[in-house]
Amino acid sequence: MRKLLLIISVLLMTSINLLAAGGKTVQESMLVEKKTFALESFQFEHSGRKIPVKIGYETYGRLNEKKDNAILLCHYFTGQSHAAGKYRPEDTAAGWWDKLIGPGKVIDTERWFVICSDTIGNINANNPSVVTTGPSTINPETGRPYGMDFPIFTLKDAIRVQRLLVQSLGISRLNLVLGPSMGGLQSFMWARHYPEMVGAVVSVFATPVIRPMGLMVPNQLGIEAIRLDPKWNNGDYYGKEPPNDGLLLAFKILLTSTRTDHWANVNFGRKLSEVAGALDPFKSFAGRFLVEDEIEKIVVGRMQFFDPNAYVYIAKANTLFDLREDSETYQQALAHLKMPVLMIIDESDLLFTMDQANEALQYLPDGQVFNYDSKNGHLSCLFETDYFADRLKSFVDKL
Amino acid sequence: MRKLLLIISVLLMTSINLLAAGGKTVQESMLVEKKTFALESFQFEHSGRKIPVKIGYETYGRLNEKKDNAILLCHYFTGQSHAAGKYRPEDTAAGWWDKLIGPGKVIDTERWFVICSDTIGNINANNPSVVTTGPSTINPETGRPYGMDFPIFTLKDAIRVQRLLVQSLGISRLNLVLGPSMGGLQSFMWARHYPEMVGAVVSVFATPVIRPMGLMVPNQLGIEAIRLDPKWNNGDYYGKEPPNDGLLLAFKILLTSTRTDHWANVNFGRKLSEVAGALDPFKSFAGRFLVEDEIEKIVVGRMQFFDPNAYVYIAKANTLFDLREDSETYQQALAHLKMPVLMIIDESDLLFTMDQANEALQYLPDGQVFNYDSKNGHLSCLFETDYFADRLKSFVDKL
Repeated sequence: MRKLLLIISVLLMTSINLLAAGGKTVQESMLVEKKTFALESFQFEHSGRKIPVKIGYETYGRLNEKKDNAILLCHYFTGQSHAAGKYRPEDTAAGWWDKLIGPGKVIDTERWFVICSDTIGNINANNPSVVTTGPSTINPETGRPYGMDFPIFTLKDAIRVQRLLVQSLGISRLNLVLGPSMGGLQSFMWARHYPEMVGAVVSVFATPVIRPMGLMVPNQLGIEAIRLDPKWNNGDYYGKEPPNDGLLLAFKILLTSTRTDHWANVNFGRKLSEVAGALDPFKSFAGRFLVEDEIEKIVVGRMQFFDPNAYVYIAKANTLFDLREDSETYQQALAHLKMPVLMIIDESDLLFTMDQANEALQYLPDGQVFNYDSKNGHLSCLFETDYFADRLKSFVDKL
Repeated sequence: MRKLLLIISVLLMTSINLLAAGGKTVQESMLVEKKTFALESFQFEHSGRKIPVKIGYETYGRLNEKKDNAILLCHYFTGQSHAAGKYRPEDTAAGWWDKLIGPGKVIDTERWFVICSDTIGNINANNPSVVTTGPSTINPETGRPYGMDFPIFTLKDAIRVQRLLVQSLGISRLNLVLGPSMGGLQSFMWARHYPEMVGAVVSVFATPVIRPMGLMVPNQLGIEAIRLDPKWNNGDYYGKEPPNDGLLLAFKILLTSTRTDHWANVNFGRKLSEVAGALDPFKSFAGRFLVEDEIEKIVVGRMQFFDPNAYVYIAKANTLFDLREDSETYQQALAHLKMPVLMIIDESDLLFTMDQANEALQYLPDGQVFNYDSKNGHLSCLFETDYFADRLKSFVDKL
């Protein structure tokens, strides 16, 4: 089966390369496939517990014979490994950074072999195209989902699994590790713990520190929203109705903290709900403004894929993000990152700020910042990539 | 009884004036008292319902014979009418703007007669020194608390009650209406609806618009946090355990959205909990960081006074804040405000921004802005008044 998939994959890639060679302006999405990397036993750092772990991954472009053209892309908080291309030509949407990754694009898959993997404990646990091991996974020892008995993990655990995946592909060095938001945090983790494997880092809308406010919003407050829902039941809800009201509030906290006053004002203003039969908010608590409808719509459209416990675990992993080991200072921790590090910062981003980036620049041996102001906040790293595409391209082209 | 209180009050004021005259540098807090204003029937604008309403108020300084030295101060979201002075000399804390209001202070009570009232639906419904009518008030028609049957009110309703209070004191014109945050919103409401009664407006950390993001955070998300708590029980929890977990989350959303990354970083960093026996957050979901403890401590210390339903109603009133009547534009609404309007803006405030203030300046006939950057966010309007005290003084001195 694996061999068959490999053959199909090679065929697909070939046809795409032909397409690209035929006319680069077409920018057809590549056809891609999800693969699975499995470990019989993985030991989590802080609990010391060992459990079997599986993660999904995708690759774009072709690994050369020397295996020295690899780039690792890490996904964001609610993201997954489908970063570019389509599974089938008829798919309506391509991967989340498809604008940047592909033949002739910013990260040119005619030159680079790009890997993107699902994290452990991925939020999209119920998405059939995501492969992850997390709280909704069946614990082989009990035959029931782990729930809150799943080991607490950190982003260091997440990249430790990724490293084993990268090594399983015969790759000993990555030219670049990059990613937006939590993907940037993972990139910093890679550079801190496996500097010999990392040629360069690009963190898009991420700095090397989760400060206390970012720890709280959206992470800790999101956890508390889910736990407040009586259906959460201490994480034991599998086979029953999940705590989707709590999850919805957690996502609203996430969405509002990753957008801006400007964004909401331009898009919704103070318009009332446009849903047929909507009640007047001046007369009823069930009445709504357009902004409420639209923010809820963004969340609800994806919620079927989300596991609330996975949200709790991955938010926890974000609160625990810290490059320092033992009693290191930030200066000592960042001194390990001797490779070129580019931080792309949006001045309207409330989570990862220029103030944080400037602090990191003091300590990074070879750090640089590219900053601009989209006015649309943190989530702009996914939807407004044109702001930084040229800067990213010039960085990648020089690798 | 009322006469007795009046005599005591006059005696107290006299002694304070003597103190002040004796040595202005002493800056002893005035002794003040809470009074009550009651209406047998007040009609709410949007529901048309009429119910009896009571609000508490305090006054500082002395109303002159012409009754033309009055200033109205409006309180913030979680505030109340105890804005200055102490009830008893031994009180540990004075009113919330005591630094600004008193004999010889920025708003000099030797010249001005300052009124501050509790809003209807005040959050501090369980504070014995607050007088308010809200969801926890007994409905005389049923003998039970209104709960969610309390009429939805707006900040326009709130100032309509205040106006009747002001008129009951024989005052036909206020030299100034001012207040921080929601107090600024009320000041704009006053100026919009009773321009003939308002000589000038100072809004401290408030602009004349609640934009959609401010509607969501902290207001609508706070409402949803309280409603998520199963103890909320559709607002019917009086005599039982109140939904304090939901209220706590609502307040955490409020506190984090009114502070900044800088504030939390300087005060807490990524320090772990300092509570004895605290668990390690890397090993337990019950483990905590210092920022979590400290933010919770700020809330828990005051929560005994808060009624969760009142939070729901006053947050709703904030979402509904809109100076426009019928199909007016902002330009038309703000054209009513012909008096001098000073907006004091902290550039680190995420709720009321310079962008919003600049938009309002386009339309205000006599608007001005004083701006600075405390880096500490919206709540700095209460705790760091030194930033704007001089500017406020020069504005008030010219009235």
